[in-house]
Amino acid sequence: MGEFSGPGDVFLADCPARLAVEVIADKWSVVVLYALSRGSRRHGELVELIGGISKKMLTQTLRRLQQYGLVDRQAYAEVPPRVEYELTDLGRTLIDPINMLTRWAQENGEDVLAAQYP
Amino acid sequence: MGEFSGPGDVFLADCPARLAVEVIADKWSVVVLYALSRGSRRHGELVELIGGISKKMLTQTLRRLQQYGLVDRQAYAEVPPRVEYELTDLGRTLIDPINMLTRWAQENGEDVLAAQYP
Repeated sequence: MGEFSGPGDVFLADCPARLAVEVIADKWSVVVLYALSRGSRRHGELVELIGGISKKMLTQTLRRLQQYGLVDRQAYAEVPPRVEYELTDLGRTLIDPINMLTRWAQENGEDVLAAQYP
Repeated sequence: MGEFSGPGDVFLADCPARLAVEVIADKWSVVVLYALSRGSRRHGELVELIGGISKKMLTQTLRRLQQYGLVDRQAYAEVPPRVEYELTDLGRTLIDPINMLTRWAQENGEDVLAAQYP
């Protein structure tokens, strides 16, 4: 274990950093966080922007991101009532890492596909 | 959809880049790729290095990463036989994004914990 121990080790099960990896290592969370990185959105807007996510899965993902302190839910007292979701300050710290991940995906997506279906 | 369309859009369901996001947006995949970023490892070594992963889950994760072309399995004809896992060239392109993710986790893990259990 020595090689991985010490402060900053994200791979001990009890480490807060490892929890954070688990938080964001989730397909829909990454997609929803990326969609919100461009500004606040309503639930229905997110469903349209994100291809292939069900309303229920989006609701669960947003709830999860709220519990982790990454997303805020804003309700506006209008008629009809308007509810929007936006990144918190903590959520905004994820924009750079997620952009790097999506850049990797853009550059290497074809190679991953090719490996899978040779 | 206009805002998200065009080349480089990782959020259309059919886009190869989106597939790649799904590949790596998996808790154990990130942890295993990180562990292998320091060199080739045997199955048993990985179980020890990574706290909390079962042998079965590790086997499934390694098989998945092999299918995606990110990890190679090397069998050496020794007595007893030795099998090691290592990153492919494609897998090595993920080291930088994963390091950025783990840095984020180290810096913000405590805040995510605090949000969850206020």
